[in-house]
Amino acid sequence: MAEVKLSSTPATAPGKFSKEHTKKELLSILAELDDLQNLLFAEHKHSLLVVLQGMDASGKDGAVRNVFGKMNPMGVLVQPFKTPTAEEMNHDFLWRIHQHAPGKGMIQIFNRSHYEDVLIQRVHKWVDEKTIKKRFGAINDFEKLLEEHNDTHILKFYLHVSREEQWKRLEERTQDPTKMWKYNEKDFEEAKLLKNYWKAYEDVFRHCSKVPWIIVPSDQNWYKEYVIAKTVRDTLRSLKMKFPKLPSAKK
Amino acid sequence: MAEVKLSSTPATAPGKFSKEHTKKELLSILAELDDLQNLLFAEHKHSLLVVLQGMDASGKDGAVRNVFGKMNPMGVLVQPFKTPTAEEMNHDFLWRIHQHAPGKGMIQIFNRSHYEDVLIQRVHKWVDEKTIKKRFGAINDFEKLLEEHNDTHILKFYLHVSREEQWKRLEERTQDPTKMWKYNEKDFEEAKLLKNYWKAYEDVFRHCSKVPWIIVPSDQNWYKEYVIAKTVRDTLRSLKMKFPKLPSAKK
Repeated sequence: MAEVKLSSTPATAPGKFSKEHTKKELLSILAELDDLQNLLFAEHKHSLLVVLQGMDASGKDGAVRNVFGKMNPMGVLVQPFKTPTAEEMNHDFLWRIHQHAPGKGMIQIFNRSHYEDVLIQRVHKWVDEKTIKKRFGAINDFEKLLEEHNDTHILKFYLHVSREEQWKRLEERTQDPTKMWKYNEKDFEEAKLLKNYWKAYEDVFRHCSKVPWIIVPSDQNWYKEYVIAKTVRDTLRSLKMKFPKLPSAKK
Repeated sequence: MAEVKLSSTPATAPGKFSKEHTKKELLSILAELDDLQNLLFAEHKHSLLVVLQGMDASGKDGAVRNVFGKMNPMGVLVQPFKTPTAEEMNHDFLWRIHQHAPGKGMIQIFNRSHYEDVLIQRVHKWVDEKTIKKRFGAINDFEKLLEEHNDTHILKFYLHVSREEQWKRLEERTQDPTKMWKYNEKDFEEAKLLKNYWKAYEDVFRHCSKVPWIIVPSDQNWYKEYVIAKTVRDTLRSLKMKFPKLPSAKK
């Protein structure tokens, strides 16, 4: 993956995308996605792991709701990764993650992920740099395990919002009664560390891109949702899935 | 690890070990082990993973009972790995294993392990050779993860019994009323494949010895138990553990 400089990476849709047309396109993709997810479940061969990373208010929750929200929940699981519990801290950092790796036929969404262990922990210097480097290696090994040993297709999205848009959204959380539940007093403190986070993300892109990252311009939700939905659709299409036939004994 | 040829590897104790003296020595080691396990639990820093592998009737269950049976069960867990469940089969072969990796302060015993996926599955040709090679790599990555990211010390024991001793013990299971519960009609069929298993084990020693294997002559239970207990004791001793002091606030 080519070097990424987030401060000069656009957070808005390329000029050729109009909001109206893209939203229409999104609807048609979502309809197709519904069928593809059903086929993935029925074939019971591959699985899909969708990793969502991004700063607070970058729109991870909205992406889950608007891209995956209409799918059959029998085949779609969402797992958020927050502050580790005491029991999780007793184990290696991938222990709690591996438990939620998708089974055959499933779509598993990680709302934040194992990457927090090389992001927030690094920015706050909770672990030393030597450990961070070792974690990069362990993450690459882990993603390879899922891909090679369970036919899991991994899509890693980084939701890229500009500093201005992030602050606007965080402010809204203090004003809009329907968004106050998302407010966390630490959010503004974290947002002030944006440059440090971007630096940490750039290093993640540098060291953990055997499974490539998809950087999603996310200042406009309609474009963000379109990019994610289209990527998932294209990935599922590429699997050339087929409905299983009757077992020969029952023919 | 040097090449191992199991057909010419002794399954009995070296001549200098007398049964009487070794059993006395074992008792003193077990007493020390009890203290060391308590210290491991109290310090809450390292953990120990004991992998027991070997043919049917090689004495894995007896090793668990006689070496670890007197320890505080609060700090010692045993996990057998048998035929995978349907849910386990939906995931990569290390998924069910990783869940039982020891937390800090714990001793975890695996009665059979992830190595079954490159032993029984290989001998019966349930998976192709390419997959076996990839699994060797995944196993090495996994053991490295536990060692480097949670201070887990791994001890891998192969319990080596001779063909004659194995058949004698399997026969006993058909005669001795206290052993019949262990009888499985497939045991004799499996025992006939001894040479194939030995070949598969030799390849495991060749490819998965970054964490070295300890080959335990196991025709005599007293010697097998002595070797395992002594190795665990020496490993725990080497950790230079200390009881934690009071937190300074409470001094």
